[in-house]
Amino acid sequence: MNLEPIRKARDRLASILTPTPLMRSVPLTRAMGRTVWLKLETQQPTGSFKVRPALNGALAHLEQSRRAGVLASSSGNFAQAVAYAARELGLDAQIVMMGNSSPYKIAETEALGAKVVLCGNTFEDRWETTYRLQRETGRVLLHPYDSEETIAGDGTLGLELLDQLPGDFTVVAPVSGGGLISGIATAVRLNRPGCRVVGVQPEANASMARSLEAGHPVNVGPVRTVADALIASTPGKHTFEIVRDRVEQVVLVTEEEITTAVRELAWKQKIIAEPGGAVGVAALLAGKIPSGSQDVVCVISGGNIQPSTLLQLLTPPQ
Amino acid sequence: MNLEPIRKARDRLASILTPTPLMRSVPLTRAMGRTVWLKLETQQPTGSFKVRPALNGALAHLEQSRRAGVLASSSGNFAQAVAYAARELGLDAQIVMMGNSSPYKIAETEALGAKVVLCGNTFEDRWETTYRLQRETGRVLLHPYDSEETIAGDGTLGLELLDQLPGDFTVVAPVSGGGLISGIATAVRLNRPGCRVVGVQPEANASMARSLEAGHPVNVGPVRTVADALIASTPGKHTFEIVRDRVEQVVLVTEEEITTAVRELAWKQKIIAEPGGAVGVAALLAGKIPSGSQDVVCVISGGNIQPSTLLQLLTPPQ
Repeated sequence: MNLEPIRKARDRLASILTPTPLMRSVPLTRAMGRTVWLKLETQQPTGSFKVRPALNGALAHLEQSRRAGVLASSSGNFAQAVAYAARELGLDAQIVMMGNSSPYKIAETEALGAKVVLCGNTFEDRWETTYRLQRETGRVLLHPYDSEETIAGDGTLGLELLDQLPGDFTVVAPVSGGGLISGIATAVRLNRPGCRVVGVQPEANASMARSLEAGHPVNVGPVRTVADALIASTPGKHTFEIVRDRVEQVVLVTEEEITTAVRELAWKQKIIAEPGGAVGVAALLAGKIPSGSQDVVCVISGGNIQPSTLLQLLTPPQ
Repeated sequence: MNLEPIRKARDRLASILTPTPLMRSVPLTRAMGRTVWLKLETQQPTGSFKVRPALNGALAHLEQSRRAGVLASSSGNFAQAVAYAARELGLDAQIVMMGNSSPYKIAETEALGAKVVLCGNTFEDRWETTYRLQRETGRVLLHPYDSEETIAGDGTLGLELLDQLPGDFTVVAPVSGGGLISGIATAVRLNRPGCRVVGVQPEANASMARSLEAGHPVNVGPVRTVADALIASTPGKHTFEIVRDRVEQVVLVTEEEITTAVRELAWKQKIIAEPGGAVGVAALLAGKIPSGSQDVVCVISGGNIQPSTLLQLLTPPQ
């Protein structure tokens, strides 16, 4: 993929989303001895970066979306983002979620006006239901990470960084299916090749790291991690290739490192991040980001965490 | 006071502090039907706006500060800010705190390298000890709200807002002794007279509101509020006059409205504010800010809240 789809995405989103803040972190800059910035996707509508690809996908196929509606398969941030995009654009949205999804997430999605369709409790069930509904309804299917529109929508974050920082920088972003980091790497590296891009996954779901080692996408099977936004068990075909070609490395963080990062962001930075949104800071604090003098940007990809989970993570050890 | 001391303060602070982010609030903008911005003083070193006046006061008297050190009287955000300023400037700092101050706040201040002097448990004890130490040591006394340097340091926040927003706006800021709002009102109203400035106090400490009614500073006696940064029981002489002349009104919020604002900022905005920092949002959500079409800026003056207190405030009602 080149820059053209990302520039188009930026034009499409310009009247709906405003660039998210890039905030200099005083405590992390002091701790790391180099300037650290936080890109706050927590400040997007619905609290995560996913509104970028959701809006871009719907807008790229607006006529069909108006006629037949949109369809997505997600029980997390993408569900809310698609529901939000549909509401903003006046579209009908159907979201397929597993029957065991948390009532909290179902309610948040329905509150935005989308219809939730519950299916069985495996990814296979979910995709089967989704593809069946697509055939039956003709709705525009919005892919969570592996379509060109999705990667391009994600890439608008990279264009914002180029506007917000004048020189070369190292950007650190979470990796699940790989859409976000593929978009960012494409936007940033093709515009400013001196920039470096590093991905971060939980050790508990090293799907992209293992795929890079193997030289092809591998499926690591069902995963369980506190970073519940980072559970895609295999990269996409497109995202795998982009990450292989444009991302410097994908590093892994432990559950404890993730929890520490959520705590540090709350107590020292006064920012609420979801665990999946904090893995970049986790890697940085754990000394896993390649050293250098470039400014570091940690993408805080989302802040959607169930209140009880946050309280549990933040409760100081007795 | 005119703009000159504020411009000087800006020049003094330029190499040490960076402007804090002004963030468009998606949920508040939607809820209020007008554009709402948050000025995030939570992102300052030490987590509150108080580093502005602390640094300005020390820098304005740098020779004497180097020779004899600085001195302040506070058990809250100003204590940490003065300790930080002294560390940054290589000065010796002494902070007078009441004996019953929370061990958490004492520890945070000592961790920044300041010497904490404990005194009796009343404001009278604290000021008596402070003035005695000033006489004995010749240290530069940094006032928490009523000196020209302090008000000018606070006013740098107003100059930043003028840089960050092109048109007229309404700024809503917390009021305790009145230093912050005096500085902001001076900077904003003298530069852009179409702007409006509104102060907010807890009902439990209506010291400025009552003083405005009386036409002179009154002392409301000891107060108790969840907004533990807003407990000055009387305005300063200077701040009273500036607020009377340049602030449109001072509105009052209940304890419950403050708590609701802390919760909304956490769950919808993913920002941790201390209760005193959230009173502007509390007033806005309670419909107490004069209506109009101007953009509204809520100054989130700080984020320093004891972890156990935050967890208690955030715990959802059962």
